[in-house]
Parts: sequence; C-alpha cells; structure tokens
Amino acid sequence: MYNRVSQKDIEALTSFLSPDRVITGDNISHDYSHDELGGISQMPEVLVKAGSTEEISKVMRYASENKIPVVVRGSGTGLVGASVALHGGIMLETVGMNKILELDEENLTVTVQPGVLLMELAAFCEEHDFLYPPDPGEKSATIGGNISTNAGGMRAVKYGVTRDYVRGLTAVLPSGKIMHLGGKTVKNSSGYSLKDLIVGSEGTLAVITEAVLKLVPLPKITVSLLIPYDSIEKAIGTVPKLIKSRASLTAIEFMEQGTILFSEEYLGKNFPDKKSPAYLILTVDGNDKKVVEDEIDKVASLCIENGAKDALIVDTDERKTSVWSARGAFLEAIKASTTEMDECDVVVPRNKVAEFVLYTHEVSKELGVRIPSFGHAGDGNLHVYVCRDDLCDAEWNEKLEKAFELLYKKARELCGLVSGEHGIGYAKKDFLREDYGEGQLELMRGIKKAFDPDNILNPDKIF
Amino acid sequence: MYNRVSQKDIEALTSFLSPDRVITGDNISHDYSHDELGGISQMPEVLVKAGSTEEISKVMRYASENKIPVVVRGSGTGLVGASVALHGGIMLETVGMNKILELDEENLTVTVQPGVLLMELAAFCEEHDFLYPPDPGEKSATIGGNISTNAGGMRAVKYGVTRDYVRGLTAVLPSGKIMHLGGKTVKNSSGYSLKDLIVGSEGTLAVITEAVLKLVPLPKITVSLLIPYDSIEKAIGTVPKLIKSRASLTAIEFMEQGTILFSEEYLGKNFPDKKSPAYLILTVDGNDKKVVEDEIDKVASLCIENGAKDALIVDTDERKTSVWSARGAFLEAIKASTTEMDECDVVVPRNKVAEFVLYTHEVSKELGVRIPSFGHAGDGNLHVYVCRDDLCDAEWNEKLEKAFELLYKKARELCGLVSGEHGIGYAKKDFLREDYGEGQLELMRGIKKAFDPDNILNPDKIF
Repeated sequence: MYNRVSQKDIEALTSFLSPDRVITGDNISHDYSHDELGGISQMPEVLVKAGSTEEISKVMRYASENKIPVVVRGSGTGLVGASVALHGGIMLETVGMNKILELDEENLTVTVQPGVLLMELAAFCEEHDFLYPPDPGEKSATIGGNISTNAGGMRAVKYGVTRDYVRGLTAVLPSGKIMHLGGKTVKNSSGYSLKDLIVGSEGTLAVITEAVLKLVPLPKITVSLLIPYDSIEKAIGTVPKLIKSRASLTAIEFMEQGTILFSEEYLGKNFPDKKSPAYLILTVDGNDKKVVEDEIDKVASLCIENGAKDALIVDTDERKTSVWSARGAFLEAIKASTTEMDECDVVVPRNKVAEFVLYTHEVSKELGVRIPSFGHAGDGNLHVYVCRDDLCDAEWNEKLEKAFELLYKKARELCGLVSGEHGIGYAKKDFLREDYGEGQLELMRGIKKAFDPDNILNPDKIF
Repeated sequence: MYNRVSQKDIEALTSFLSPDRVITGDNISHDYSHDELGGISQMPEVLVKAGSTEEISKVMRYASENKIPVVVRGSGTGLVGASVALHGGIMLETVGMNKILELDEENLTVTVQPGVLLMELAAFCEEHDFLYPPDPGEKSATIGGNISTNAGGMRAVKYGVTRDYVRGLTAVLPSGKIMHLGGKTVKNSSGYSLKDLIVGSEGTLAVITEAVLKLVPLPKITVSLLIPYDSIEKAIGTVPKLIKSRASLTAIEFMEQGTILFSEEYLGKNFPDKKSPAYLILTVDGNDKKVVEDEIDKVASLCIENGAKDALIVDTDERKTSVWSARGAFLEAIKASTTEMDECDVVVPRNKVAEFVLYTHEVSKELGVRIPSFGHAGDGNLHVYVCRDDLCDAEWNEKLEKAFELLYKKARELCGLVSGEHGIGYAKKDFLREDYGEGQLELMRGIKKAFDPDNILNPDKIF
C-alpha cells in the first residue's frame, strides 16, 4: 500500500535538507521506535530533523507524491503510540524547531514553534510576568505535542485546556500546502474551525509548524494546600462539595500514599507529609493577598468539616518544590516501581471521580493486579496505571485486557470519555470504537479523507 | 437538484408530527422568509415547529431520503442570511424547544434545548447565582443560534466566546442519526472534536437539539465606567494600553456620539452622558469589593492619563440599565435611523481596532455614505454598518459593494478575519473566499460532504 523509502528518496530529501538532518538505517537511535510507554514499537525508515515550515512543506509534498507514510514526533513523551511510525516511512522530528518567535503584549499572545518544550514556555512566560495556563505534569513535552492531544494538566479547573489557549496555527497539509488558521484575533466566526479540528487530532490531519497562544497575566500569589485524609473516599468525596461551594480553585489533585512513596524513592526527596492513606492538593491563585488567604481559609475549613485530618499550607519555595516535583514525577515513579505498565486516561464528570477511583480498587482486588492512580480530581481526569510487576506474559496480557475492559466500561456508565488528555493514538483505538460506535468514527474518517486523501499522515491512528 | 415539497410529503410529516406544527403555503408568516436584516429573502415550502430530538431525527431522515433541503431557524436574529431557506424546502424552527433541562451544581453545567433565549438563560443562571459568560447584545437570540455562530459578545475580553462554554452537544445529522458529542467532562482528547466543528458551522453540518454549557459562579460585584473622550482615536487608542497594563477587565466597548443619540431616540430613554464625540465602557467584575474598586480606580486613572475627559461610575441599577439597554439597542437604533443597511462584523487583533475604525471614517468620506460603528474594542470585534439613507438603488448597490470591498481588504491587511461572531451565512461568502482562498474552502467542502453527502442541510451557506 505504501512505498518503502529508497536511496532515490533519500537523495531527493537531501536535495532540499542538509544531509546531517536526514538520518537513515542504523544511525537512527532505537528511541525513535517508541514513545514513553514503549508498548508499541516500530522504527522509521528515515528520520528528518525538521527546521522550518517550508522544509516540512517540501517533505510532505514529496511524501505525498511518492506515497510514503509520515509521522510527526515531538519529544516522544506520549503514552498511546501516536508518534510511532507503524508503517516505517519518514519520521519528522520537530524538536529542533524550538524558537519562541514573538511575545505580543498588546494582544496577550506568544507565537511559538512546535518544538518548544512546555518547561521552556513556562519559564519564558514567567520571566515576562505572564502565565500560559495549561500545565500537564510532563514538562518536557513539546507544545506541538500538547496541541496535538489537547492536553489539559492541573490548572484546567480554573483555566481550561490547551484548546482554549490556541488562537492560531500554521499547519502543513499532507499535500504540502501551508495553511494559516485563526490568528491573533479573540473571536472567530469565519467558517468551520479547522484550527479546532487540528487541536487534538494527534498528528493525523496536518503538521503543526507554528502556534499563536493566548496568555494571561501571571497571578501575583499562588498558594497550595496539602490535605491528608484517612481514606481516598473521604478525600475525593470532598471535591464535589468544593466545586459546589464555588471556591475559586486553580487545581484540585488527588493522590494516594503509595504513589507518594514511589515518588520519594524515585526522586530521592522527602515529601512534606506521607502518614495518611490519601491526599488532596488544592491551589488558589490571585493578585490580592487577602483574597487568596481568605479563599485558602475557606477551602481548608470545608475540607476539615468533611473529614480531612489537617490542611498544610504549601507556601515556601522549598515546600512548593517538594510537592510539585513529586506530583510531576508520579508517572515516572510508578513506572520505576514495576516491570511494565499500561495506562488509562479516562475523564468522567467531576462528581463521579470518587466512584471511579473506588472501582479501580475493586478491579485491582478482583484481578489480583496492582492499579495505582492519581490525577486531576477537580476536572474528572484520572491517570490509572495497570502494573505488571512479576506476572508472566500470559497472565499479564489476560489481566491487562480484562482490567481495561472493566475500566472503560465503567467510564462509559458514568458518562465519561476514553481519554481526557493523552489521546487515543494506536493503543486505545478499540476503546474509542466501543465508546463512539460507527457513527462518529465514520464522520472522523470522512474528515481524515478531506485532509489526507492518500492516508499518508500518521495512518492507522485514532480510528 | 432538490425535490419540491408535495402533498405526499406533508402527509408523511404529519404522520409523526402533530398537524398544527406543520405549516404550509400562505399560513407561513412572511417573517420566515428573512432574518434581521432582510436583504436575503426566500420562503420555505413548509415550516415545521420542532418539539424534540426524535422529531428532528425523523424529519431529517425523511428529508434525506426524499432529497428535500432543510434549514434550521432559531429566533431569526441573524444578519447574514444563514437561516434563510434559499432553496425552499423544510424550515425547522427550534424556538418551541425552549426548556432548561438541568442545572448540575456539582459539575457547574446547565443543559438546555436550543430554543432557549439568551435572556432566559441569563435570568435563570442569575437566579441560581451562576453566570453563563457569553453576552452578545442581541438577548432574544436563541442559544442554538449563538452556538451555530460561535457568538462572543461583550464579556469575551475576560471570559472567552461561546465555544469555550459548550461542553457537550446532542446533534442530528442530515441522515437523521442522533449524535452525543462531548458531555459534562471538562477535558476531552478522544478523537477529532466534532463538537467544535459543529460550533460555528451555521447549521450546515447537523441540527443542534441539546447543549451542555459550562457555567461560572456569578461574580458578586460588577462595576462599569463610562469614559468620554474628545475623539475616537483617543478612546480606542487607550485600549492597547489597558490590555498591556494587565487590568482585569471583563468588557471594553466603544461607541460614538451619533450611535448614542440614535439609541436615545429609538428607546426614548436618556443616556447618562452624550456631550462627547466618543466613549469607552469598561467593566470590572469580582467577588471582593475592594479589589474591584481598586481595579476601577486604576483603569480610570489610566484612561484619564491617556486623554479621557472623565470617568463616570455606572454602579446604580438605574445607570446600569440606561447604559446597557442603550448598548443592547445600538443595532436596532442604527437600523431605525436609515432606510436600509448592511453590516460588516470583522475581527482584527485588538491593537488594530483604532486603525480600522479610523479607516471606516475614511471610506465613509471617500464614498459619501454614512458608516456608523460600535463594538467590542477589547476583543477586536467591530460592528460596522453601511447605511443607505436616501441613496437610489444604483448608487446604493455600487457604494455598498465598494465599501465592503475596501473594509474587508483592510481587515485582511491587519491580519483580521471576515467575521467575529455573526458568521458568513449567504451574505459574506465572497469575502470568506477571498480571505481563505481555495485551500481552506476545499477542506470545508470535504468536511461538509462527510456530514451531509446529499447536501440537504442548509445548502449554499458559508462556501
């Protein structure tokens, strides 16, 4: 169906790309065969380190004319195989396109290339007294990858998700055509929102080569609370009450003791408190000290009334670093605690989080497999990890399949969705199909065909 | 190409719809031939007053099988002919589907039918101490219409636009298939965002029959300032400085003296101040009196430093009503001041608003035609009206065409877009084509085909 990459193709690519950015055969590191979880693996035939929109346009035109599949890769922190070159072909790596092109203080936008890392963008914005609100745990992800999965992160409770901050995109179609979608304008009612279609499309519709992002002024004060509970039910059970109280919370995260202990071991750093079975972390931000403090008092009291054992203020730099670096390392820490794992990134209405987490405990007991979880209690997005530990191949495959079947079924019952922010990629296609049925997938296939009639861009992903 | 509606079709429709909701021939009011501006006019062959998702599904299935075009209509407040039955056929009116179905205080969502009016939704939310932030001037528009144009309104500066508040949609495809898209979840990374494609698609992809909307807690305090300037340059020139100052503003509106006078005449009510040639209205909201007052002081000082003549606080109920009812009536007032008018709803980066408004003055002078404007200075969305006054047919057609050509060309130069919130409909198709070129339109046609292969739903709109 696709053509293999030949010597002629390499010569053609190096006619418009400097040869040191066109890598072939054994010179391609094995890292490029998989993403963060590694369960899905295939080497690309050629790795192109892209340098500009124009170069990407030329690569796509060539690939299109020669029926060679192309997959785009950022820093490879995905968890569902979306950036794996299933059919070989060309891998377009965008991490070299990592310039912050413009800060526009009159329109409150920043224009970036796709390879800018989330942590670089955060530091740049903070330096200029701005906040780019989306805040996924994985800070070494690229902004291109974040846009491709519509990542949400921890501050979604107050600020929303990546989609809400993408004002404009420059994107290259599979044909090589360069499109400018949206821009610096705040409003847009000018035809179908192609920009919003590309956000969250996991690199299957177009290659993102530039993005105009909305910023907000950096809040002057940010305070968090670490709140211990003697059970996960009580901890997460407080969340709907917090939401209903109309507290102005930026983040509501939950975690269990086990996850904290893994993270301490992984980072070699102490967490401020780890005696309790379950914790919430709440964050409030704002510009007025008294308003923020009043809000912190209010939510602390509400938590105590609802069974919290304490409410520890996280306001010193040391405590902030200790809590948030632990939170940022949870995935890596759980990964380091086991031999292999797979992840479920469901999102449910936020008043159903407790029910879902308790259900993961039931499934764990029923199947005899460890299922730690943590996540964004305030927006209903859970990160649930099925751990292999010392299971043999046959047991692992059977238990993993059964666990996923039960977990996604439960999410459906609770009116949830397959993925909150990690995407579908290759690994979750079956669950998306079960969730949506043929109707929605048929529409998605039609859309894919409009963008990519020859199906050369990241084929066989999502559906 | 399409089949005409026959007696057999009427009988088929009345087999599943009560006959008093299937209206034909002379029994259809002439109002259904046009929208608010009336420039585009055509009567539907049959008017169906829809009562439920299931009914709409049956109508669409029938229309699809019998190749009859269908157009959906809310309360007909559109300005670009999007809800005009260009090809006759069936008009599906949704204003009877006007129930607020559920307020979910644990997930901060409200679920509504499409015929709920914006003013009804606003009153309901306020009653329950919530705010549905999108706030277009036309309060008698339906929420279905607002979603179909991705309307923005006055509070977009702080809160964003309709798209940002649509969490889930129930929509009926042209085939009659009922789709549930999104839901109550905050995050979503589960395949292409069909919901975001339908938002802003002006009734061309699917019929919206239910929506889950995100709410925010009602701010406890809202204060506005009415700020007179001796020129429009000075007034709008302050806006980028306000944005750059990081003031937390909810709305930044601009208006000229003439518009205020029309509105006084139209409403028969006094505006608090009308001696100056130009005004800004600024709004700040929040929960802490002192914080809001400090912000009001700060922005008032900044305006005075930048040439404002005064800063009148709008805090009494009387003043609020007087200012905001005038603002809400600007379109109607300008319409009442002339014999005929057409509108340009461009959006430009917000630091280009002054340049664009001054250009409308130039065009007005050059062509000898009156072009009043007002709009959302804080988000770059302008409402510009070309007025016919006493021009004869030939002059009007020529000057209107020339004015639009110049205005949209200027918007393009400033990296703006054809429409900020009123849509493309039928009236602005040529300008969208010029703006986007064939590339984007080709993609839109492909998407339309995936949703509506027989092209029966609102044909010939947008592109």
